[in-house]
Amino acid sequence: MRAVDIITKKRHGEALTKEEINFFIEGFVNGSIPDYQASALLMAICCNGMDSWEIVDLTLAMANSGKTVDLSPIKGVKVDKHSTGGVGDTTTLITAPLAAACGVPVAKMAGRGLGHTGGTIDKLESIPGFRTDLSMEEFIQSVETVGLAVAGQSKDLVPADKMLYELRDVTGTVDSIPLIASSIMSKKIASGSDAIVLDVKTGSGAFMQSVNDSFLLADAMVKIGVRAGRKVMAVITDMDQPLGTAVGNALEVREAIEVLKNKQHGPLRDLSIYLAAHMLVTAEACGSLEEALNKVKDALETGEALKKLGDMIENQGGDRAVLDDYSLLPSAEHIIPVKAEREGYISSIDTYKVGLSSQLIGAGRSKKEDNIDAAVGLVMYKRLGDQVQKGDILAEFHVNDLNKFDEASKIFMEAIQIRSARSKLRPLVLGLVTKHGIQKFGAVSDMEG
Amino acid sequence: MRAVDIITKKRHGEALTKEEINFFIEGFVNGSIPDYQASALLMAICCNGMDSWEIVDLTLAMANSGKTVDLSPIKGVKVDKHSTGGVGDTTTLITAPLAAACGVPVAKMAGRGLGHTGGTIDKLESIPGFRTDLSMEEFIQSVETVGLAVAGQSKDLVPADKMLYELRDVTGTVDSIPLIASSIMSKKIASGSDAIVLDVKTGSGAFMQSVNDSFLLADAMVKIGVRAGRKVMAVITDMDQPLGTAVGNALEVREAIEVLKNKQHGPLRDLSIYLAAHMLVTAEACGSLEEALNKVKDALETGEALKKLGDMIENQGGDRAVLDDYSLLPSAEHIIPVKAEREGYISSIDTYKVGLSSQLIGAGRSKKEDNIDAAVGLVMYKRLGDQVQKGDILAEFHVNDLNKFDEASKIFMEAIQIRSARSKLRPLVLGLVTKHGIQKFGAVSDMEG
Repeated sequence: MRAVDIITKKRHGEALTKEEINFFIEGFVNGSIPDYQASALLMAICCNGMDSWEIVDLTLAMANSGKTVDLSPIKGVKVDKHSTGGVGDTTTLITAPLAAACGVPVAKMAGRGLGHTGGTIDKLESIPGFRTDLSMEEFIQSVETVGLAVAGQSKDLVPADKMLYELRDVTGTVDSIPLIASSIMSKKIASGSDAIVLDVKTGSGAFMQSVNDSFLLADAMVKIGVRAGRKVMAVITDMDQPLGTAVGNALEVREAIEVLKNKQHGPLRDLSIYLAAHMLVTAEACGSLEEALNKVKDALETGEALKKLGDMIENQGGDRAVLDDYSLLPSAEHIIPVKAEREGYISSIDTYKVGLSSQLIGAGRSKKEDNIDAAVGLVMYKRLGDQVQKGDILAEFHVNDLNKFDEASKIFMEAIQIRSARSKLRPLVLGLVTKHGIQKFGAVSDMEG
Repeated sequence: MRAVDIITKKRHGEALTKEEINFFIEGFVNGSIPDYQASALLMAICCNGMDSWEIVDLTLAMANSGKTVDLSPIKGVKVDKHSTGGVGDTTTLITAPLAAACGVPVAKMAGRGLGHTGGTIDKLESIPGFRTDLSMEEFIQSVETVGLAVAGQSKDLVPADKMLYELRDVTGTVDSIPLIASSIMSKKIASGSDAIVLDVKTGSGAFMQSVNDSFLLADAMVKIGVRAGRKVMAVITDMDQPLGTAVGNALEVREAIEVLKNKQHGPLRDLSIYLAAHMLVTAEACGSLEEALNKVKDALETGEALKKLGDMIENQGGDRAVLDDYSLLPSAEHIIPVKAEREGYISSIDTYKVGLSSQLIGAGRSKKEDNIDAAVGLVMYKRLGDQVQKGDILAEFHVNDLNKFDEASKIFMEAIQIRSARSKLRPLVLGLVTKHGIQKFGAVSDMEG
């Protein structure tokens, strides 16, 4: 078998066999297939696609490229939740304690933020003392004793994905459904959870900006999971505006705690409850979504989920006093309001630019090596469809380095469109994908909040 | 400007600007753009194509990536002839002396054979003492004094092509019209000739197997030449069978001499005269093709062209006695006939396989580093449409290493189809491409022979 023949086959749009895909991934990881052949194959995949069997084979080849996590010592159906990445999306910090409080063990390996999106690991690390670099034994023991653990992905897991991603990033081959689906699912499969709930974001702040592509991506990922023997479903959700009000690491931790204290309502709370309920159903802890929703709401309203978050923080070396004393979290020196320049209705939010403006003042990275400032970010005071008067505060920026504020606030203002007429809004949840197929919701969401 | 943005643009099928193409080629040659980004761009070009302006910009960027040859010290319109590569195609050894004998200076830089095709430099080097590694001063002086020179391409010329070709060879990106056209034309433009006649081969022994693709390639190359300010035209010719009877280096030199002695007729002679006449017309040494054909035939029949070949051989260090004494050329130990296994008509010849069988016994290279045996090869005794009886000799193999003969003759026999019914033949010349457009010939060629 020769790498060049495999590349040529895909260049001409033919389907690769499992053997060819395994040969290529193994060779790439062990160094016998060089970067320049891998990037040519990646581009051929971007241009000519892959069928669903090829995507499964690619995912499994990647998942098997390094160590895999064996969660079998933990009793019960272990569940994971994964978001494809958004802005102000801190659902993991809420859904994981919610599901764990309902008795479903949550063993989550999470990533760091890159570009305009945040990452769960960065957010958790803004809690003083919190450790995300758990050993495999610590990780498993945490899930066994506390019922949940959120840790950074072990470096030994899925080396193929790390290597391919670095190459995709510099060769214009990031936005490809087969490559995105296999990247996400190889990590989910290698991390060992039995059940996986996928939150596929769609809109101006998501990697997938078209609803159709988001359903295609969700469908590809669910097919992979099913064929790999996992219980899996996907929820397609709106990312045409930040999900929560906070964008920035410590600010988002604070908002997650407020939701778990039942003090904050709105889309972040609604979606967290909805996702946690699907985690229960997918893990077969509940027979119906309605039952699961009731159970999850109970866990929130009784404070059980908040307690679970506290247990996890304590177990992973953090200070659980943070739940009641936000001053223990890092905070920025300056809070600067940004105001509406005209009256009208918020008609659109370029959510990518909102994420970018937060990144620019230090909340995110443009390169993996960049340091982030956990204290900074912004809090939104308006959502799509809200009426504003000239001079109303649209958002407050939390800033340490004032030199960076001008550019960031300029980009933020460009992101917010105010029009005289109110435009129609789409629902928070746009549909589901399960092993039974695709279900698209209409103008009114089936979601209960 | 960032390489990744240029790759992404081409991935999405957009046209690149001259500045972007220059940035990429310069960066690739100076090492600031790595192989893996170049191979991603090459694959995106293969999948999404390039418009004719992009191809011109790419060609000129490549041509300017190293030294260029200045032929201005030589008086007159210097002409070059280039074949896209075929089997038994030794036209350069005939057309160059023909054109030179008619007073048009020929300054040709030629290549070596690779894969199933032969190369002019290898053929010439089978002449004892013949030097192809001329310095630039020697090359120019040779054209000035003798009227023609054929030398290997200087290593300093078009480094971008060498680097890109090595990458294309291992990344499945060889067969792409923009990449083939820019590769050929960058070398032609850098080699400094004022007029260029292109012989685009089409059929089973050519890199372009479809007639349509061959016209597209010819059209792309002519457009490049015109925009680069050269006089240029292309002839599309049949490569569904070897052009001459000989396939192999010394055997082809001998056949070329026989043609120039006016002792051998047939397609090799016909096409050589036709191409030489177009060289005269393109270099504006003749006002019409008819006049040029007459002039070229005169040069052949009077022995003037044979004398020119002798002058060139002597000038480049070879022994011109070879013209009259073929025993001075290397010869093989064994001559083995291969016979027809049934009666009928030769209905098709897989010319790629004929070239491959010659390569296998040592006449060609599979890798650039391979040594070749100048003595070996084969001589065809039958052409398409010929009637054969069982036991008739189809070809004679000239072999030194008998161990290699079995596989080679097996492949050769697979290449030759004999059927009961005689099939229709297509003409030797299928059409022309000039700056005025494409002219496709019908079933009967306009060519005079």
